[in-house]
Amino acid sequence: MSDYKLPANVGKLHFKDLLPVNPNGEENTRIFLSKLNEILTDFVRDTSDRNEKVLHFKFPEDMRASLDLDLADGPVDLQQLLDDCHVTLKNQVKTGHPRFFNQLSCGLDLISMAGEWLTATANTNMFTYEIAPVFILMEYVVLERMRQIIGWKGGDSILAPGGSVSNLYAFLAARHKMFPQYKEKGLTSVPGQLVMFTSDQCHYSVKSCASVCGLGTDNCVEVPSDERGRMIPSELERLIVERKSKGHIPFFVNATSGTTVLGAFDPINDIADICEKYNCWLHIDAAWGGGLLLSKKYRHPRFTGVERADSVTWNPHKLMGALLQCSTIHFKDEGLLLSCNQMSADYLFMPDKLYDVSYDTGDKVIQCGRHNDIFKLWLQWRSKGNDGFETLMDHLMGLSEYMVERMKQMPDKFYLCLPEPECVNVSFWYIPTRLRNMPHGPEREQILGKICPILKGRMMQEGTIMVGYQPDDRRPNFFRNIISNGACRKEDVDFLLAEFDRLGHDL
Amino acid sequence: MSDYKLPANVGKLHFKDLLPVNPNGEENTRIFLSKLNEILTDFVRDTSDRNEKVLHFKFPEDMRASLDLDLADGPVDLQQLLDDCHVTLKNQVKTGHPRFFNQLSCGLDLISMAGEWLTATANTNMFTYEIAPVFILMEYVVLERMRQIIGWKGGDSILAPGGSVSNLYAFLAARHKMFPQYKEKGLTSVPGQLVMFTSDQCHYSVKSCASVCGLGTDNCVEVPSDERGRMIPSELERLIVERKSKGHIPFFVNATSGTTVLGAFDPINDIADICEKYNCWLHIDAAWGGGLLLSKKYRHPRFTGVERADSVTWNPHKLMGALLQCSTIHFKDEGLLLSCNQMSADYLFMPDKLYDVSYDTGDKVIQCGRHNDIFKLWLQWRSKGNDGFETLMDHLMGLSEYMVERMKQMPDKFYLCLPEPECVNVSFWYIPTRLRNMPHGPEREQILGKICPILKGRMMQEGTIMVGYQPDDRRPNFFRNIISNGACRKEDVDFLLAEFDRLGHDL
Repeated sequence: MSDYKLPANVGKLHFKDLLPVNPNGEENTRIFLSKLNEILTDFVRDTSDRNEKVLHFKFPEDMRASLDLDLADGPVDLQQLLDDCHVTLKNQVKTGHPRFFNQLSCGLDLISMAGEWLTATANTNMFTYEIAPVFILMEYVVLERMRQIIGWKGGDSILAPGGSVSNLYAFLAARHKMFPQYKEKGLTSVPGQLVMFTSDQCHYSVKSCASVCGLGTDNCVEVPSDERGRMIPSELERLIVERKSKGHIPFFVNATSGTTVLGAFDPINDIADICEKYNCWLHIDAAWGGGLLLSKKYRHPRFTGVERADSVTWNPHKLMGALLQCSTIHFKDEGLLLSCNQMSADYLFMPDKLYDVSYDTGDKVIQCGRHNDIFKLWLQWRSKGNDGFETLMDHLMGLSEYMVERMKQMPDKFYLCLPEPECVNVSFWYIPTRLRNMPHGPEREQILGKICPILKGRMMQEGTIMVGYQPDDRRPNFFRNIISNGACRKEDVDFLLAEFDRLGHDL
Repeated sequence: MSDYKLPANVGKLHFKDLLPVNPNGEENTRIFLSKLNEILTDFVRDTSDRNEKVLHFKFPEDMRASLDLDLADGPVDLQQLLDDCHVTLKNQVKTGHPRFFNQLSCGLDLISMAGEWLTATANTNMFTYEIAPVFILMEYVVLERMRQIIGWKGGDSILAPGGSVSNLYAFLAARHKMFPQYKEKGLTSVPGQLVMFTSDQCHYSVKSCASVCGLGTDNCVEVPSDERGRMIPSELERLIVERKSKGHIPFFVNATSGTTVLGAFDPINDIADICEKYNCWLHIDAAWGGGLLLSKKYRHPRFTGVERADSVTWNPHKLMGALLQCSTIHFKDEGLLLSCNQMSADYLFMPDKLYDVSYDTGDKVIQCGRHNDIFKLWLQWRSKGNDGFETLMDHLMGLSEYMVERMKQMPDKFYLCLPEPECVNVSFWYIPTRLRNMPHGPEREQILGKICPILKGRMMQEGTIMVGYQPDDRRPNFFRNIISNGACRKEDVDFLLAEFDRLGHDL
């Protein structure tokens, strides 16, 4: 028996009875989409309900056995399709739940969601003004605003499918600017081994660039970071000099603004000085931390000097809460993106069009077709205004500070990896009763590290909270809590801490 | 005065009065989303209505001036947000209109659209089973089915943000398999210049791969094609031998199944023989033509030998009509995708999780986060069944054949570039009255080519139909008509041809 019952005569129909295949299908289409709307809105309601669980965990094999995922020869009817939607959501993790702290992207911004429904309905590609006129103009407006916030006049930007691809665009532009011949001739035309630099805390996509683009990961040099996870500038300089002495060509430095695990911000001004001295492109991967550019309170010192960068990655789908996915890459130079990536496909980008073809963006990207990732962000920005985004940033940072403060009040139960986090990442160990009198040190950390997966397993099976854990290069497993959901409140932080204790005290 | 009026007390509210920010906002959220649903469904109705125009063209500057795209400091209210949605859609090109023939992706599959609404609402990332359990399982089921249709047992696949990135994955996997040391050491560790081959009709993303990955476009060799746009195998062999004699290393051949402009299918078996002989990876870019794998009538001879390929790109968002975007890349070998792209990010892909971590896909891709592109395809597949997809393919091909047949009945008005197209691409010139007695040849083609942009301009300003044009390497501008909308019928083809005549006869 379905929870979402269409009238029987409609439920037995099939896709071909609806618009647009059946031009007389308007009434049935309305009934079908209204019922879908009900299912989706109920999910939003459950996601917002603190009495609902974050997830109902099932092991993959059990999940598979409990679902009918078959693709049969014949069609299923409209009622079955709605049942499929309902069952899918029932088994989905509520990433928008105020007690989901597991990922850099948490939350469900309702207006951004509305924007994404419209995006789906408009179903267009972003390569030309011809087929996406309003959306192309929205890209202009929003991306220009974002560059202004970075501190630039002019420049160029593009939306990409995720921060990793955004970082790849930066790498490609840097290589093209310094070695324009490589586009046709390839890397072997460059007079020496190219080398890039990034901190040992950077996102793994930076290393992936080196692999994809033919440098090899050995030529992506990891610069040591300090105890708070920030790149050490003197180490950067030492490593650049070392590589130069081997005849290599350092050309690209990635500074991270908001590292994935610890939320550290590399010191931009110091790094920019070194880049100037050694003629390296400075890229800032602010995929994660970028949102804090919008806050007067938190922008400095984290982003001091950001305008000196050559390129900046900034993902609105992270701290700003835009729906997945929404990633931007910005360049100080205009024209570089086009000359780097242009393949001049005659069939799309003809110079003899009716309108000014400089509005066509398709030849700036390596993707050809691009999903429309702008409308959900534009509409969300309208709904909040600049001030609303600033309030959101301050709210998220404030909650994280509250969490740290509460943990410091319970030093027997929680041990912070960093006493003063710079972002909404809070890294810590939970300490079960039996270990509370043990002095903290490598031995206790080893035991605490082994407890993380067990405690995480309990969380998932209880379904009341979700928090991620991981090891890093200097610690065994520890928890990393993320507050990036605008709907989160102090009471959720209190609940979270109490739940760690309830689920973990006996471990 | 808005066409979509919320009750005044609701219209004046703001995002923060709705779920999830306001947990008591359920009622207002329902009212807001219902009204949005009305706007979206009305757009679907208009898109399906042959009396509605495909677009209301405005020049970029006029469009910009007519819209309020401003991002202000303060928030706009819910009524304004709905008005924004309405105005955006009013100015959007209806890519789902049965008389939009402009792009490889036409149409608006209602069930796939419903799937995308749900995807937005679930708002999750696809890197781990932990946060996307059902969707990860759906990827398994659908991608396995697609590999079976290709003709493989086992293998591996992934969804990528568009065919260009899918082709890039194929290139990376091929390079990794042949030269596993390049991942760490880079291209300079390979004992000679790597060279790839593709036809001169291929999608430009293949050349882009060569640029991105450091080969340089000079090392992406264009193989001549025959008069129907199909790669000439003997030319491929000649060029491979030529490069080998220079000490280069041919390693990758791209065969296109459905070229972008002419819709040509390269002869797979002949190319596969050559790849075997010279130890090259065979990739098939079936981004466009892939849908025809589903049709018993049209699969052969186009795809005969496809199971001999090492990798296949296939975009369900093209012929199959899934919503944008939905692109897949398939590999015959299992494990290659992981070993090629794995960067082993500890913070996401821990081996000590509660469940079998082989379900986590994030370490197989260069993107880290991935948009959920599976649900819209899975739901659509359920709604049609295998048989329904086959019927769709046969319907689209049948309509294209009908169009060609009708054109042949009017040889004074239409001149076909290819008399027997292999796909739903129909390439032709429209001949205005004054040129009908002129013998066809290079001179008339030049004049007809100059007419294309003018006629296209008239179309856009009338808004009744949209068809693309482009030059190619052997012709000046010509029209390329695409029928990939399941809602299209013979009457639309008749209308299209009549409209060319109405808009163009006096040119």
